Amino acid sequence: MEENKEHITFEISEELIARVEHIVDTENDAEALELFNDLHYADIAEILDELSLDQATYIIKLLDSEKTSDILSELDEDVSSKILRNLSAKEIAEEIEELDTDDAADLIAELPEDRQKEVIDKIEDEEHKAEIEELLTYDEHSAGGLMAKELVKVYETWTVAGCLRKIRSQAKYVKRVHSIYVVDKQEKLIGRLSLKDLLIAKNESKIADIYIPKVDYVHVNDDAEEIAKVMAKYDLEAVPVVDDEKTLLGRITIDDIVDVIKEEAEKDYQLAAGITQDVDAEDSIFDLTKARLPWLFLGLVGGVGAFIIMEGFKEFFESYVVLFLFTPLIAAMAGNVGVQSSAIIVQGLANDDVKGSINNRLFKEMLLAILNGVILAIFLFLFVWWWENNEMTALAISTSLIVVIVVAGLIGTFIPLFLDKRGIDPAIATGPFITTSNDIFGILIYFWIAKLILGI
Amino acid sequence: MEENKEHITFEISEELIARVEHIVDTENDAEALELFNDLHYADIAEILDELSLDQATYIIKLLDSEKTSDILSELDEDVSSKILRNLSAKEIAEEIEELDTDDAADLIAELPEDRQKEVIDKIEDEEHKAEIEELLTYDEHSAGGLMAKELVKVYETWTVAGCLRKIRSQAKYVKRVHSIYVVDKQEKLIGRLSLKDLLIAKNESKIADIYIPKVDYVHVNDDAEEIAKVMAKYDLEAVPVVDDEKTLLGRITIDDIVDVIKEEAEKDYQLAAGITQDVDAEDSIFDLTKARLPWLFLGLVGGVGAFIIMEGFKEFFESYVVLFLFTPLIAAMAGNVGVQSSAIIVQGLANDDVKGSINNRLFKEMLLAILNGVILAIFLFLFVWWWENNEMTALAISTSLIVVIVVAGLIGTFIPLFLDKRGIDPAIATGPFITTSNDIFGILIYFWIAKLILGI
Repeated sequence: MEENKEHITFEISEELIARVEHIVDTENDAEALELFNDLHYADIAEILDELSLDQATYIIKLLDSEKTSDILSELDEDVSSKILRNLSAKEIAEEIEELDTDDAADLIAELPEDRQKEVIDKIEDEEHKAEIEELLTYDEHSAGGLMAKELVKVYETWTVAGCLRKIRSQAKYVKRVHSIYVVDKQEKLIGRLSLKDLLIAKNESKIADIYIPKVDYVHVNDDAEEIAKVMAKYDLEAVPVVDDEKTLLGRITIDDIVDVIKEEAEKDYQLAAGITQDVDAEDSIFDLTKARLPWLFLGLVGGVGAFIIMEGFKEFFESYVVLFLFTPLIAAMAGNVGVQSSAIIVQGLANDDVKGSINNRLFKEMLLAILNGVILAIFLFLFVWWWENNEMTALAISTSLIVVIVVAGLIGTFIPLFLDKRGIDPAIATGPFITTSNDIFGILIYFWIAKLILGI
Repeated sequence: MEENKEHITFEISEELIARVEHIVDTENDAEALELFNDLHYADIAEILDELSLDQATYIIKLLDSEKTSDILSELDEDVSSKILRNLSAKEIAEEIEELDTDDAADLIAELPEDRQKEVIDKIEDEEHKAEIEELLTYDEHSAGGLMAKELVKVYETWTVAGCLRKIRSQAKYVKRVHSIYVVDKQEKLIGRLSLKDLLIAKNESKIADIYIPKVDYVHVNDDAEEIAKVMAKYDLEAVPVVDDEKTLLGRITIDDIVDVIKEEAEKDYQLAAGITQDVDAEDSIFDLTKARLPWLFLGLVGGVGAFIIMEGFKEFFESYVVLFLFTPLIAAMAGNVGVQSSAIIVQGLANDDVKGSINNRLFKEMLLAILNGVILAIFLFLFVWWWENNEMTALAISTSLIVVIVVAGLIGTFIPLFLDKRGIDPAIATGPFITTSNDIFGILIYFWIAKLILGI
């Protein structure tokens, strides 16, 4: 493999970490600079994640701010905010100067409020400072919170030649030119151009004659998730952001959207698994407990609820012990069906894929649950009949199973749809919430139906 | 709002569907053309999804292939392949001619093999045909399956002026120019340039003097998921694809990667919820049953297993009924803990975030489970003590709970790590699989421990 071309295969290894730790501990700056010079900032961020806070701070202070600013942006927020605490306002301002406005604003937002002001005051580039201050005013989950101020903007009155000149100067500050946005004298967005269009056009043409007036845009207050959806749907690599007057304020690029999509998917997945906060395997036991214990507590309360219900049917103990021995099965089936139904609805809602009325949806789920329930009930009936040699007991248990599955499916379908209508994230309805409520309802229904069929 | 600029807010409505159905049924082609002319192909795809196959085919045949080719690419595979069955090989070839090679190959891959050949023979552009045939040879989950042949390529020997001329002609066939790839005489990738770099450079400069020799690339056989990870990590918007000799074969763009990321997240989510196939809320009851029933059946078997275990402890029934009334609680807690642990590991593995040995990981999970278990056990102890007025029973049940939680956490941590080491997708270990095995182990452990403590 030639040295300058890289097949992307960086793998962090224990040897590498040990080498970095040794370099830092022996303050071998020359070797550190040589090592990190060849590494991508995203890889260095991965390495810093493995080091102690002091070691990581040492490396951040050692390397050039051109590189460290990107590393700080890439690090998990809990790590970078700790490192920032070890840096002076002046040092942080130097990092900020190197970053695009969106990353700069995100980094500053991690600081406590009094330090934010201190750092902003130390930023030397007045324009950069004003832009960052503007970005800090927007909600972080809105278009304003995602966008960067860096973009290439031309006026409709310009010529192609003048435009190319101007772009040459603007382009230095814009890492990637996705689209060139065309504005009128009032700075209102009126169209777009690609660099390619500009290259193909004649030098003396006017922008007004060649620009594409059809341009998709989002409003500065639009929700980040919605923007992620439309950018993915329409395959947009960048989208301009405007205010109520259509004034061009900034642009959002696809790489920021990739992060939004990943975070959203991870959050839904964690909620479905009963984990309330964004944690990962490397977090502290305390953080992991905080994220997991509340849902487990809910499960405990549900289990106590099931116990109390079963206590209420205590009079059957003597003659129908077998009913009690199947309660874990009933609870498990109610939970599984509920999780399946709610997952399909939550995913459908996330993809804007759920059509038709709630009633239609419930009707379909009911048919599905009856089909699944009957198939499963037949197996259960045969087993209980064979084991207990009593077809009435088998009939009672298996019929109850069908009803439990239908009710669990309906609850699993209804709750996320209901929450969504109320403007609550339906993902919280998946996982332990559905499992627990279905456990309780399932066992209650099971004993009722069994009681009815067995005539007790 | 001015007509030419669009705030992205397309919402499909029942009125719109009804209007389209009416237009199609009355064969009002003029109105149809007017309506669809203003709509984005992704929106039209959403509308076709709601129509009957005949109605959708009618619209595809009516509209221009420039638009319908994109619509077909956007539609779900099961819908588009049905529509393709209604089109002649010649008609499909016309759609194919309009598409980029990657989308063209994907569309052809949906056809039965004998029709594939028929359609390819009808493609008039020989170069396009050869490129599509090449793409069809790669595995669809590899770099080769994702990449497009459309890219802008320049030779190191060219000048900037010559290069701009050449790019003007190549660029017509490339929708978006991300990077310009620099190759040597043997077509080997040696570097890259951005359009911006080219614009800033002097016309008489040689490419050899200005190109950036550091270029990330992937191998044509690399796995799609791995590529998605590195493109997201390094914020790449496009990446070149090479073979063993570093010959430049194609490029992958970020919009394809967004789809890979979304699909992967959805698959993991569905597996965690006990849904084996890629289904959505709008699929038929039969498809939904096929995806859901196997996991429910597993749950049923687990429940029967729990029943058999409890039968084995029947002798306690007289004196320790209360033990049996807590089995749903024990099973639920074992299931919940297992799902949490496995979800954290599966997500960590997906993000390459799980470091250290399996033993370290198990040790950490054990500490965590003990902490959670003790907190929950204290609550359960107090409840049972108060309710049953018997501290030995309360002690037996709550101590068992701790052990069950620890074992469930260890199983939930170990199984996905073990599967991953064996090269099996660890996501299958989440959801019903973990829940069911933990139910059974949980109940077994529970009775053993209780027996020990109560001295029975």
